[in-house]
Amino acid sequence: MTSAALALSDSVLGLRPDDRVLVVAPHPDDETIGPGGTLARLSATGVAVHVLCVTVRRGRMYGGASDPFLREQEFAKACAALGVRSSVIAWIDETGTVDVCNRQRELVDLIERHEEVSLATVDPVALFIPSAGGYHQDHQAVHRAGFAAARVHPAGLKPTPRIVLGYRGVEDRWSAENESWWVHVDTTAYWPAKEEALRAYGSQMRAAGPRSIEHVDRIDSAAGASIDVGHAESFVPYRLAC
Amino acid sequence: MTSAALALSDSVLGLRPDDRVLVVAPHPDDETIGPGGTLARLSATGVAVHVLCVTVRRGRMYGGASDPFLREQEFAKACAALGVRSSVIAWIDETGTVDVCNRQRELVDLIERHEEVSLATVDPVALFIPSAGGYHQDHQAVHRAGFAAARVHPAGLKPTPRIVLGYRGVEDRWSAENESWWVHVDTTAYWPAKEEALRAYGSQMRAAGPRSIEHVDRIDSAAGASIDVGHAESFVPYRLAC
Amino acid sequence: MTSAALALSDSVLGLRPDDRVLVVAPHPDDETIGPGGTLARLSATGVAVHVLCVTVRRGRMYGGASDPFLREQEFAKACAALGVRSSVIAWIDETGTVDVCNRQRELVDLIERHEEVSLATVDPVALFIPSAGGYHQDHQAVHRAGFAAARVHPAGLKPTPRIVLGYRGVEDRWSAENESWWVHVDTTAYWPAKEEALRAYGSQMRAAGPRSIEHVDRIDSAAGASIDVGHAESFVPYRLAC
Amino acid sequence: MTSAALALSDSVLGLRPDDRVLVVAPHPDDETIGPGGTLARLSATGVAVHVLCVTVRRGRMYGGASDPFLREQEFAKACAALGVRSSVIAWIDETGTVDVCNRQRELVDLIERHEEVSLATVDPVALFIPSAGGYHQDHQAVHRAGFAAARVHPAGLKPTPRIVLGYRGVEDRWSAENESWWVHVDTTAYWPAKEEALRAYGSQMRAAGPRSIEHVDRIDSAAGASIDVGHAESFVPYRLAC
Amino acid sequence: MTSAALALSDSVLGLRPDDRVLVVAPHPDDETIGPGGTLARLSATGVAVHVLCVTVRRGRMYGGASDPFLREQEFAKACAALGVRSSVIAWIDETGTVDVCNRQRELVDLIERHEEVSLATVDPVALFIPSAGGYHQDHQAVHRAGFAAARVHPAGLKPTPRIVLGYRGVEDRWSAENESWWVHVDTTAYWPAKEEALRAYGSQMRAAGPRSIEHVDRIDSAAGASIDVGHAESFVPYRLAC
Amino acid sequence: MTSAALALSDSVLGLRPDDRVLVVAPHPDDETIGPGGTLARLSATGVAVHVLCVTVRRGRMYGGASDPFLREQEFAKACAALGVRSSVIAWIDETGTVDVCNRQRELVDLIERHEEVSLATVDPVALFIPSAGGYHQDHQAVHRAGFAAARVHPAGLKPTPRIVLGYRGVEDRWSAENESWWVHVDTTAYWPAKEEALRAYGSQMRAAGPRSIEHVDRIDSAAGASIDVGHAESFVPYRLAC
Repeated sequence: MTSAALALSDSVLGLRPDDRVLVVAPHPDDETIGPGGTLARLSATGVAVHVLCVTVRRGRMYGGASDPFLREQEFAKACAALGVRSSVIAWIDETGTVDVCNRQRELVDLIERHEEVSLATVDPVALFIPSAGGYHQDHQAVHRAGFAAARVHPAGLKPTPRIVLGYRGVEDRWSAENESWWVHVDTTAYWPAKEEALRAYGSQMRAAGPRSIEHVDRIDSAAGASIDVGHAESFVPYRLAC
Repeated sequence: MTSAALALSDSVLGLRPDDRVLVVAPHPDDETIGPGGTLARLSATGVAVHVLCVTVRRGRMYGGASDPFLREQEFAKACAALGVRSSVIAWIDETGTVDVCNRQRELVDLIERHEEVSLATVDPVALFIPSAGGYHQDHQAVHRAGFAAARVHPAGLKPTPRIVLGYRGVEDRWSAENESWWVHVDTTAYWPAKEEALRAYGSQMRAAGPRSIEHVDRIDSAAGASIDVGHAESFVPYRLAC
Repeated sequence: MTSAALALSDSVLGLRPDDRVLVVAPHPDDETIGPGGTLARLSATGVAVHVLCVTVRRGRMYGGASDPFLREQEFAKACAALGVRSSVIAWIDETGTVDVCNRQRELVDLIERHEEVSLATVDPVALFIPSAGGYHQDHQAVHRAGFAAARVHPAGLKPTPRIVLGYRGVEDRWSAENESWWVHVDTTAYWPAKEEALRAYGSQMRAAGPRSIEHVDRIDSAAGASIDVGHAESFVPYRLAC
Repeated sequence: MTSAALALSDSVLGLRPDDRVLVVAPHPDDETIGPGGTLARLSATGVAVHVLCVTVRRGRMYGGASDPFLREQEFAKACAALGVRSSVIAWIDETGTVDVCNRQRELVDLIERHEEVSLATVDPVALFIPSAGGYHQDHQAVHRAGFAAARVHPAGLKPTPRIVLGYRGVEDRWSAENESWWVHVDTTAYWPAKEEALRAYGSQMRAAGPRSIEHVDRIDSAAGASIDVGHAESFVPYRLAC
Repeated sequence: MTSAALALSDSVLGLRPDDRVLVVAPHPDDETIGPGGTLARLSATGVAVHVLCVTVRRGRMYGGASDPFLREQEFAKACAALGVRSSVIAWIDETGTVDVCNRQRELVDLIERHEEVSLATVDPVALFIPSAGGYHQDHQAVHRAGFAAARVHPAGLKPTPRIVLGYRGVEDRWSAENESWWVHVDTTAYWPAKEEALRAYGSQMRAAGPRSIEHVDRIDSAAGASIDVGHAESFVPYRLAC
Repeated sequence: MTSAALALSDSVLGLRPDDRVLVVAPHPDDETIGPGGTLARLSATGVAVHVLCVTVRRGRMYGGASDPFLREQEFAKACAALGVRSSVIAWIDETGTVDVCNRQRELVDLIERHEEVSLATVDPVALFIPSAGGYHQDHQAVHRAGFAAARVHPAGLKPTPRIVLGYRGVEDRWSAENESWWVHVDTTAYWPAKEEALRAYGSQMRAAGPRSIEHVDRIDSAAGASIDVGHAESFVPYRLAC
């Protein structure tokens, strides 16, 4: 991490090798588009990153169809590119009728207690959730559920992450809420890994527009400019306890 | 203005040939770094753009000295590149001791009644002022004064602009305020003009960092991405009366 | 549009004859109470206004009963008074059990693809949705769905409106959110049309209180005072791309 | 109410003997943890306090099980300690499957028209609801429903409370929203009553952590410090009409 | 105070006969335009209202000249119409050069210790200051000074008002800040007194526009509509301790 | 740092031995009342803490007089108790007439280039400044100046701290701004050091009220409760770059 203007840290918010991070993604690709470079950087420095993806559904999409099997493969490939330790998609919606935002209570339970990847199994130092201001109803529902799951629990009952960060979704500059994007992670050296992960999503990414690699490149370049590095990712720091 | 995703307008907020715009800039270069592409686009479509620059001072600066004469030349050259109709620097501070933010009342008077470029002489449809959230004390003072000058006056007493926009300053992502950047102007075709105006500021721009052309390029590219065009500039729309 | 203090425009945000506007209203009368004068002004200047009303239900109401057939008639009459080009009520809820706010995904689909009046059929320049801060759960749900539907889509896949405005609901001063009502449209000359449309809602309007014509008159008069005209309507400008 | 620094009032926001207050609590104990001291003070001065508790469910909880019968007993005991005039739990969820936040419309109806304790039966001067910023999905749903129910209604149709206050939930410092806690009620003399009510919740309170009496004591002590008294409770004053 | 929809109180926030209120006004007429009806209502019910007006200056104004002697007479007449108990203008600026916003510390001292009308001499229960969001630099300075003066002081050192309200200035809908106008005072019966006080300001009020009686009438009517009364004034409740 | 509920870090935001921190305090005691425990914790773990105190003046105060010599002694003693490496008071105002908030430009220069303790001499990793929302005019001025000084500078010209935190002032719960206090530092083990530093301020602290040790204790206990520890201090994280 060399930077001309700021002497940046070699750790991300003090996270160290063997610390554990849990990332909650509404759909496959959200873990990459927003915080992908940061996950790659964390993984590269020995931090164990685990991704709980909430759902993928079968169905018609603008510009094609969504095939859960294909999307699971893409998700696995992207997670591999980022160095993710373990990952899972919780709800495979074969009928295309599951409406995530009507399942608030189940979402909280999922994040707290999913048997493979959850607060209970990972016991993470840091939790990454979608930021509050995303325009997408599923992102809002997952944000709320992740936020509720992250409340401070009495000792011994449930793990409480000491760091909670909100990450950007695709097109999240389209938001009526102005959030405080105060954490900036230099991801210059990890842009290639992020780009590889983005490429893994052949069914989701487009040649142009908001879902293109070029679009994400521009967003991360502008974030980089704000701390005078090549690429960066910004986060909303809901909790930083130390 | 061609755009793949949105069918953008050929006018900026309905401004038409011979409409008048007044831009208030704290220092020379602020009119270029923030809204330069928009000013070039307006000028190119026949709108008359006038720039009131508040002050320039003689003195020591980080990375060199500020020579008022040189800076006036740069300012004139940049305004020419943008197609500005008339421009003036109001306060030449030869002693380097003028503190703009202790002259709130004089600033309001200046914007309302400067004899060459002001609300009184231009009678503008639109007023461009620094946005509220800039970190720089002079930008904040000029914002407040411009905002006060733009209040609705009784008919006949003083011109009231029906559009009031806040523009970005250099480094204005370094702000503790979250403003609503809701107006987006496609400036793709005018990036060359903005770049030329930026180059005119030889004493102010740097090869790298926040005051580099590359930095401004990245900011405008990210703004462009949000409406799926090459470059754009965003504004805070304090008033749009029609 | 004559105004003593401000020289107002003869276009609304640059909208021109044959431009298309889509208004999404949670229930019949919302298109009139909030933006009715603006719709009348747009129609009068040749802009094509289309209204998608989400739902009306059969059932008991405070102060009477709601009869879907009667309310469709009222809606048609009000739309005629405003000069609306086409209009439709999407969901006629004969059982009175449909809870709009549990159908977030269907709402987004409705606004994007309803076969008569939607983004797909109208391909509008401007989209009008309820503002974010309304107290009513249905208004909030329709706001969120309209906002999601208005995201920038890749070219060719779906129309993206370049203007997105939030309008007031009845009683929306009863709100815990402070929104930025920055667009003001002079509707003085169109108050009679709005009043006629309000009168069309015989089953909804009351002789006094928040649902009276006098109440709407007072709100629009105060908005008018802020730009020194007789009547005006204010909007939240979520997106103004040009 | 003696206070060294401020000469505090002997009434709470002007409420007087025989005035009526309606408190809406998502679950048993919310009426105590947030506004318990204030309710005790109101009761002691002759104001009639009524509590509508929305729901309690049978089911597994972290650290034990929830038995509706036991929790009703606890609720009754706590209400007695606070001097509450009447109280009811509306929805006993024996199956543990009721998801409050998918029943927005029923919640509004409940608060407006529950046959025992509601706006219709109590006709209150003041309504207490959870504040907007609570992290818990049920608190958010009850907040929204209470807010909607409190809108100004035409005279004769439904009671409209002239005071609407938001109270804190347990752990509500864990919030992404910054609300305006501008009302401060000196509850120093009523801390013993609040403590007794907290103790009544044997199945809910813990020896340590966020659900401990010591935790509530610390929160109320800090609120007290802000007005220089021993203990206080703070509220968000959504409406104060007089 | 009779009201159809809400059963309003006969006291304003619990203020009672012989309670004392201190109003800080930047210039003569601010005490009338914003909170005049409320002051008249308080006075009529026996509350002692005292007004500290900060400054008036000799000088050129838009639409005439400002003569301090004349303006003192107008101020006295307006205060009489509102039933104000005592009033003073602190700084008579004969030279027209005093810039209030460069005298922050002196302003705090003035509000705390002016020998005739101040916190020290009035020892008020309630303090009225301009709200934070006014566009005028003097209003902002007086707001900040009043806010600082209202902090909680140790007992015995200085009076601390238990109620602090922000009132509207003329044209304060022209504001970049969205404040929470949560207190609404029914002033229907006191509109005649307010109108008389407004008329006293012959040199300040205009026949039309923002400084006309008709403009104030419209603002107060809209505020009235929000609580279903004829006229009302709204306030920001910075502190309500009881 | 042991904690029942959260496994807290042994570093503060990743700061490590020999890292440098610059604290800017408006007056002596601000460095202790807000962030004193955190400074003690940092010092104890080998981080070098430097304090730039802006000013102290000779003059009359409520409850006594301010003697610059005495206050310098108190400041030195408090800094020693906290383990501060170096400290200085920049402006000794013997006449009591210096108004900090009219010297915005000089304040920025001071923080950037004071010859003993400044960004230039310390080249800090982290900068601590008063938070934006303090009610005191000097705190606001120092906040703005510190924020401006902390902007990202081109490499080589001036040090840019990668962490910028806002700390609380005394009585900062008396604020009209709602800031995001998202960083929580467990200071349980350092409360004794903070208490010792507070006691050093014999001329400033009081036996009761906002300036009493008991008051600070209550604030820090409530902050501690929010992360389930004994005492904590909260900060606004304006920048966390890594």
